[in-house]
Amino acid sequence: MTPSEIHADERLVHVPLGERAYDILIGPGLIGRAGGEISARLRGRRAAIITDEHVAPLYLEGLMDGLQTDGIEAVSLTLPAGEKTKSFEHLVTVCDAVLAARVERNDAVIALGGGVIGDLAGFAAGIVRRGVRFVQIPTSLLAQVDSSVGGKTGINTRHGKNLIGVFHQPDLVLADTAVLDTLSPREFRAGYAEVVKYGLIDKPDFFFWLEKNWDDIRTGGPARIQAIATSCQAKADVVVADEKENGVRALLNLGHTFGHALEAATNYDSKRLVHGEGVAIGMVLAHQFSARLNLASPDDAARIEAHLKAVGLPTTMKDIPGELPPVETLMTAIAQDKKVKGGKLTFILTHGIGQSFVADDVAASEVQSFLSEKHPG
Amino acid sequence: MTPSEIHADERLVHVPLGERAYDILIGPGLIGRAGGEISARLRGRRAAIITDEHVAPLYLEGLMDGLQTDGIEAVSLTLPAGEKTKSFEHLVTVCDAVLAARVERNDAVIALGGGVIGDLAGFAAGIVRRGVRFVQIPTSLLAQVDSSVGGKTGINTRHGKNLIGVFHQPDLVLADTAVLDTLSPREFRAGYAEVVKYGLIDKPDFFFWLEKNWDDIRTGGPARIQAIATSCQAKADVVVADEKENGVRALLNLGHTFGHALEAATNYDSKRLVHGEGVAIGMVLAHQFSARLNLASPDDAARIEAHLKAVGLPTTMKDIPGELPPVETLMTAIAQDKKVKGGKLTFILTHGIGQSFVADDVAASEVQSFLSEKHPG
Repeated sequence: MTPSEIHADERLVHVPLGERAYDILIGPGLIGRAGGEISARLRGRRAAIITDEHVAPLYLEGLMDGLQTDGIEAVSLTLPAGEKTKSFEHLVTVCDAVLAARVERNDAVIALGGGVIGDLAGFAAGIVRRGVRFVQIPTSLLAQVDSSVGGKTGINTRHGKNLIGVFHQPDLVLADTAVLDTLSPREFRAGYAEVVKYGLIDKPDFFFWLEKNWDDIRTGGPARIQAIATSCQAKADVVVADEKENGVRALLNLGHTFGHALEAATNYDSKRLVHGEGVAIGMVLAHQFSARLNLASPDDAARIEAHLKAVGLPTTMKDIPGELPPVETLMTAIAQDKKVKGGKLTFILTHGIGQSFVADDVAASEVQSFLSEKHPG
Repeated sequence: MTPSEIHADERLVHVPLGERAYDILIGPGLIGRAGGEISARLRGRRAAIITDEHVAPLYLEGLMDGLQTDGIEAVSLTLPAGEKTKSFEHLVTVCDAVLAARVERNDAVIALGGGVIGDLAGFAAGIVRRGVRFVQIPTSLLAQVDSSVGGKTGINTRHGKNLIGVFHQPDLVLADTAVLDTLSPREFRAGYAEVVKYGLIDKPDFFFWLEKNWDDIRTGGPARIQAIATSCQAKADVVVADEKENGVRALLNLGHTFGHALEAATNYDSKRLVHGEGVAIGMVLAHQFSARLNLASPDDAARIEAHLKAVGLPTTMKDIPGELPPVETLMTAIAQDKKVKGGKLTFILTHGIGQSFVADDVAASEVQSFLSEKHPG
């Protein structure tokens, strides 16, 4: 099989970032062809694969074999699964493994896993030898449509999530859509929330198309690859416009300020709430808050809520199992969110479906009284 | 006093790196004026000062007072002095302190100290919130003419020095030449080796001027500021030509491949050898090695050796106190140096004083037989 040849059932999204430009390949079976795709693009012939204990038994051997076939010498490091792995402690372990593997600047760190592995391995790739090559092989829908594209990497600290990291663009993203069949329905739905987000930001037609095609996306029909490709293209467009998040890239945080606060409020307990679920609730809240500020029609918020409900996602705070802390605690979490400049709150608001915008002067008191109305306690 | 106004006895070197452009100010008394210079250039009004236990008693209070006068709210963190501080452990401490101080993207991390503090604090500035502003206030000659300019940051690991880090350019460098009077003669000489290096790379006239003006530089005459400004300008020119070290920037490693190997061979024991001393010996060796390869006249190596000796710097391996490990150990250190691509050794060689060039295909066997001749054991 010729490497770098786009198959009939594949899509390619190019991210034109000058000397940091890269390709995103989307389609079934890409893990088995990773060696060819990597050796067609990278000069180095060594790789360090970073993965986790959930993903390794499923895909690590196939990836190692494929790399070996194409002459890439690879070692692997398997870490515990879960958000707690995004720590300084594990970063040290990854950096040490990459250096021990004698990965040089033109060689690669390969992230095989979801967003946690991608963020951690990408951070290590960005700092070992002040930057080595980086390949993302995202195995969750969330990672395929969001975190594997755009170069944000990082770890969590006691001060908050993702507060330490670098911008380090991948050199290649291989989104193998076949692996999504092994995701739990809940995990698939959570990733789908980020797909919906791209429609809500500035693609109303994409949102209307999603409403009709959700079932085909869920069951792995042709709409799945289309939905992922459209999402990657949407993210790539925003990243190219604002690589370092000084402006328009903030739109990608639609639903995330409320979502992050709810994740913090549930102590990042994935039994209660995972990131995509927080984003789903957050997007509904952002549209309701915009309607309350007379910026958008309440009908749009209701239509979005109806679709997310049909998908099986939570859409209100009372959908979260267990008790939530009081509104004051949510406000503290919002204030500590890093999307704060000089003390003012930055929010993504909207004029309706597909008409989001960045507002950087939202009064905390408005947010607080809105949340008090919506809070179930 | 108006901030950002160049005083009669000051020099300004501008580093034109597009959106990462910055100024280097060189002159006496700049620490006391740091608040004005920073607030003239940065939007943020918070700062976290990183310093060490040797520098803090001398300059921290003056800097804090100066910042407060200009409305900058600063906290400080004082770390142990010495190369061992460039570790993951201390990086975690610095990041935590910077986050605890609620330093945001437009606020600053300020490095007050020598190269160790600059490299460590710069790394933290590069990764907290994926990059906050960074001000270098170098207090050693070495840091003023070399490490504070150019954006290389990093820490050491068991695999070698500076193998983990980022490129993160400072937003301002304040080289207060008055502080150099408190350096020990040995530390001053070690920094001077890097000044000589700029002459040897591509400025023969500067080297000849240094031969005549060393005493004025040492005693703090007008030649001192001139020598520092010329060095900063030389470094800035190379950094602008090749910010990420893909080519010509490697010239700055003249004398460093041998020098690093000698530092490793003496276990980074500063009682036996400090970095600038290793570079001094390394520069003489690089010129002798080039002469042996019939690339340069042995007279140039002899002239350089004579000047460095007159300064009081070591120039041969036998000048290093204590026993050196065998040549094979030095070769292992050279091979592990990160200036290795695909297994080949990259060396900075020369056609004579001020005529250095990058050679990326030097045979290890040639280096080994040369070192065997020079080795005192």
